[in-house]
Amino acid sequence: MKTIGIVTSGGDAPGMNAAIRAITRIAQSKDMNVIGFEKGWEGVLTNKHRHLTTRSVGGIIQLGGTILHTSRSLDFKKNECLEQAADNLNTLGVEGLVVIGGDGSFRAAMDLSKISKALMVGIPATIDNDVYGTDETIGFDTAVNTAVAEIDKIRDTAISHERIFIVEVMGRTRGFLAITVGISVGAEVILVPEDKCKMDHVVSIVKENARKGKRAGIIVAAEGCGNINDIAREIEEKTGSEVRLSILGYAQRGGSPTARSRLLASLFAEKAVDLLCQGKGNMVAVFQNGIVTAAELEKVSCGTKSLDFNLMKLAETLAT
Amino acid sequence: MKTIGIVTSGGDAPGMNAAIRAITRIAQSKDMNVIGFEKGWEGVLTNKHRHLTTRSVGGIIQLGGTILHTSRSLDFKKNECLEQAADNLNTLGVEGLVVIGGDGSFRAAMDLSKISKALMVGIPATIDNDVYGTDETIGFDTAVNTAVAEIDKIRDTAISHERIFIVEVMGRTRGFLAITVGISVGAEVILVPEDKCKMDHVVSIVKENARKGKRAGIIVAAEGCGNINDIAREIEEKTGSEVRLSILGYAQRGGSPTARSRLLASLFAEKAVDLLCQGKGNMVAVFQNGIVTAAELEKVSCGTKSLDFNLMKLAETLAT
Amino acid sequence: MKTIGIVTSGGDAPGMNAAIRAITRIAQSKDMNVIGFEKGWEGVLTNKHRHLTTRSVGGIIQLGGTILHTSRSLDFKKNECLEQAADNLNTLGVEGLVVIGGDGSFRAAMDLSKISKALMVGIPATIDNDVYGTDETIGFDTAVNTAVAEIDKIRDTAISHERIFIVEVMGRTRGFLAITVGISVGAEVILVPEDKCKMDHVVSIVKENARKGKRAGIIVAAEGCGNINDIAREIEEKTGSEVRLSILGYAQRGGSPTARSRLLASLFAEKAVDLLCQGKGNMVAVFQNGIVTAAELEKVSCGTKSLDFNLMKLAETLAT
Amino acid sequence: MKTIGIVTSGGDAPGMNAAIRAITRIAQSKDMNVIGFEKGWEGVLTNKHRHLTTRSVGGIIQLGGTILHTSRSLDFKKNECLEQAADNLNTLGVEGLVVIGGDGSFRAAMDLSKISKALMVGIPATIDNDVYGTDETIGFDTAVNTAVAEIDKIRDTAISHERIFIVEVMGRTRGFLAITVGISVGAEVILVPEDKCKMDHVVSIVKENARKGKRAGIIVAAEGCGNINDIAREIEEKTGSEVRLSILGYAQRGGSPTARSRLLASLFAEKAVDLLCQGKGNMVAVFQNGIVTAAELEKVSCGTKSLDFNLMKLAETLAT
Repeated sequence: MKTIGIVTSGGDAPGMNAAIRAITRIAQSKDMNVIGFEKGWEGVLTNKHRHLTTRSVGGIIQLGGTILHTSRSLDFKKNECLEQAADNLNTLGVEGLVVIGGDGSFRAAMDLSKISKALMVGIPATIDNDVYGTDETIGFDTAVNTAVAEIDKIRDTAISHERIFIVEVMGRTRGFLAITVGISVGAEVILVPEDKCKMDHVVSIVKENARKGKRAGIIVAAEGCGNINDIAREIEEKTGSEVRLSILGYAQRGGSPTARSRLLASLFAEKAVDLLCQGKGNMVAVFQNGIVTAAELEKVSCGTKSLDFNLMKLAETLAT
Repeated sequence: MKTIGIVTSGGDAPGMNAAIRAITRIAQSKDMNVIGFEKGWEGVLTNKHRHLTTRSVGGIIQLGGTILHTSRSLDFKKNECLEQAADNLNTLGVEGLVVIGGDGSFRAAMDLSKISKALMVGIPATIDNDVYGTDETIGFDTAVNTAVAEIDKIRDTAISHERIFIVEVMGRTRGFLAITVGISVGAEVILVPEDKCKMDHVVSIVKENARKGKRAGIIVAAEGCGNINDIAREIEEKTGSEVRLSILGYAQRGGSPTARSRLLASLFAEKAVDLLCQGKGNMVAVFQNGIVTAAELEKVSCGTKSLDFNLMKLAETLAT
Repeated sequence: MKTIGIVTSGGDAPGMNAAIRAITRIAQSKDMNVIGFEKGWEGVLTNKHRHLTTRSVGGIIQLGGTILHTSRSLDFKKNECLEQAADNLNTLGVEGLVVIGGDGSFRAAMDLSKISKALMVGIPATIDNDVYGTDETIGFDTAVNTAVAEIDKIRDTAISHERIFIVEVMGRTRGFLAITVGISVGAEVILVPEDKCKMDHVVSIVKENARKGKRAGIIVAAEGCGNINDIAREIEEKTGSEVRLSILGYAQRGGSPTARSRLLASLFAEKAVDLLCQGKGNMVAVFQNGIVTAAELEKVSCGTKSLDFNLMKLAETLAT
Repeated sequence: MKTIGIVTSGGDAPGMNAAIRAITRIAQSKDMNVIGFEKGWEGVLTNKHRHLTTRSVGGIIQLGGTILHTSRSLDFKKNECLEQAADNLNTLGVEGLVVIGGDGSFRAAMDLSKISKALMVGIPATIDNDVYGTDETIGFDTAVNTAVAEIDKIRDTAISHERIFIVEVMGRTRGFLAITVGISVGAEVILVPEDKCKMDHVVSIVKENARKGKRAGIIVAAEGCGNINDIAREIEEKTGSEVRLSILGYAQRGGSPTARSRLLASLFAEKAVDLLCQGKGNMVAVFQNGIVTAAELEKVSCGTKSLDFNLMKLAETLAT
């Protein structure tokens, strides 16, 4: 394989740059050319790209975001778009394309793979950790730590004012971020969409804590649970306790990646280039049972990862 | 003076604990007893207190929040409350009371001073820096750095997605936090209540930047500017650019204090105890022209600090 | 089982407090009493302890160090000491003892188990990650991130001055910390004791980089590689390049634990209490292939974990 | 004035990039060209430079180090060097040169000003804060906070092991960094060169603390106090207490600048460009009594700033 391409697509995640750096350097050590497409699939479609070299990816391992920029290209799945993209890859001589992103990006890669000669290999990167087939995605550990650091600060205020705070974390439709953050901050309650965010349960815990004299508290809620204002008001009404609200927001998506996000990015990159060198397309580099391995792109992009409910039980015991 | 009291009142601010530690240790080095009231004025009113010693305030200099807890006691100004509070101070033998908080706390101290024999001395502590007569308050520097660290992360995402973000920072009715944060993050636009948040100006800058090809941008808005959702929607409508929203929230009030917040707390504490030892009541330890000095409690609690508009002009030049 | 004890022993590691909290709360949810011994094995020996409750372990999940304090009790292995310790456990009614520490602590537990009726269960906690049978120890992830954050800062100066820096990280006799930190910071060279710290190789890389015009660089060296001053001087002499030295030191052992260290501590605690409830002694809660499971105390305390040399190769490719 | 130059010289300091950005943008807003010299005075001497524009200095406000790189050019003061430098400035049409650095850099600027037509204006930037005539230098606040964060972590270990740690901070020959850091971390003892690092005093405090049962402690020592190993050994011998050692090192010079370092850099830049526009050379932008003003380059480069001994007394009271 002489030339490979890289595209970062969907929401950005800390560690994408570490992946771009590692792919480029590993590929160049095997005498391959590396082309980086700009702004996600849009760059593949409009042929906006630049050549990446061992030197040009220096000094980026510690940077959040993606130097290639990204976008959510909703139109990409149209047939004429896919054909244009396949043509561009072909003209540039791109024989393998590494797609760094989440399941939406992988589904687009699946579609493109049907009409393009280039092999597609995915690298899971999203702070939401909602990609099937991998225990962890690039950026997840960073987002967790960012949220934990913020909530550690909020707890200062919660305790000083003896108040209950409900804090919304990201995670799209899933609760992976919320459960990991919630246990790490010692949240009194964790609300995830997978558990229907049972309000009665929440209300009973808040009341029970108040009865025990524990008036400060942190409730961590996944954004997928619904309107956080409504949830806060409902808790207030049903418990009589004042509830303050904080939405952590986009800072969770940025920042310098943690060591783990950087390391995972480097290991995924190694596997991705390895897969391309072996001529294996439509695969994804994944992290399973403590090691980096490969899974089928189709399964990864269509499967639904399950939440560990034992963690929810543990969280409840720890919050007593 | 044999016995002094400490009360932390109003919103908590990082560095309050550093102040409690310093007051206690300085007072004990002068053989005074120190009483800490719990939950702000509520503790003075209900006589909830504990004795503070050099040892019991160990290991707190780096902690956010306030170990004495705080509250906003709206009822405190009623005559019967003030009399109860004065009685409690008298019974405990409290001859001097150090009030750590913002202008609301200082006005309550003013009221109490009229019927209590105890001398009142204020220490300005609020992340909003909106206290007249002092160039800086305890906690301000910490909140600024917390907000800056968050926005540095948001900028990663703003650049990766080439989007405009509007970020709301705290500051109550004033723009001190917004202007300092805005310059420090290199915000494209800073909105403060003192400048009427001129939307036409904002719109022209966003349009001009788009014309120059600068599609990512950070707008820092003080919470005092009004509903941030409305502002975001208005900018979107008038510029045609998508605007994402982030409200930094309560994390700005917590966290380990910066060196500056700890140092300022220690210096204010030294001045406050000094004032009490000299028998000077109804004063506030303030920071003016680079040094710690004393100002009259009445002036401090009633005055209105002006915003430095030269900073606004500088910010605009720097954002080009 | 009615009463269990907790001891933190050896070097402290961030997350030990999260483990103490989790053990206590899980045990109390099963109606067990929890006794915390002070200052490591010294407290078991001298019977210095306190009762831990769900409430008394509140607010510690985010704190570095160990609230129980720790020590390296070299005398503990003497027979009379072990007998005194066994007596104390017996008198207190301690039926199970959770030992939080590294392999030295586990060997002491092995010795004690031979004469004590109490069941011994270990929880691996050391920033060095040098415990056999577990892929990760409590505190390792935190220490890695602390070191990475420091070296990211040192790189600013390295680049600004176009200088080579050699940075010593901890790890005792092993290179686990160095290799993980080294890859995460994108170090030009990583020196670990397992690879004999081959100086000729280092020298050739530094010379080659200088030839390519890459004059700034970071060399990460494990403390187990020997005297860092000597290494730095040797590199200087053999390459002619000036080499600056930084020893990261004890900060790597402290600080608020990362989310991962807190979560691992909570999961290890759950497993440890579970083992005791099942009457299984002389076991260690370990992390293998992505899940928490149990291993035999004897094997864990005597085995030698191997370093992943594939990581060393990857690091070299990435540093080009 | 049509063209100005910028040079960063001596040790790098966080905020230098914020200054480069601000100078460039302010100058360009006045239609001036801006030339950045590479690697400190070496770039002026060898005519290595690049043109800086409003766009090219984007995205650097938050970066540590200096994008222009720096060096300590010992040869620069030779006459032939100065003449070459003056020639280069003249040929490039540089009418004003902004020198960002410490007193060594300012003395070189003084020398150069004697034979060059270009006006010289200084901006104080050094983490050591040892520049006469200004209460603060760019980078000082960042270095203080970096050191404080490290020592907060070391304190975890100090308390867990009940040990005394001596921590060396930077500061060259002076104690500004040590005293500010020391008060902020609540150090038991602070050693500064200005106070002859009185060992007898240290020994008596350590002994007294041990007597009171306070066995953990932090001693902050300025690097200017002499060999830290010797100091540690001497304390051990005279007190019988074990003393651990940590040298914070180069991380203090790097890292993302704090808000204060960025703001100060921006304000100094504004003043520096203003001075050049007014045709005032041989001046330095300084921070005095809470405001940015100008001082004479000659006085600033030759004067010796005094340490505030009241702070030392306060530190001692607070450490009880």
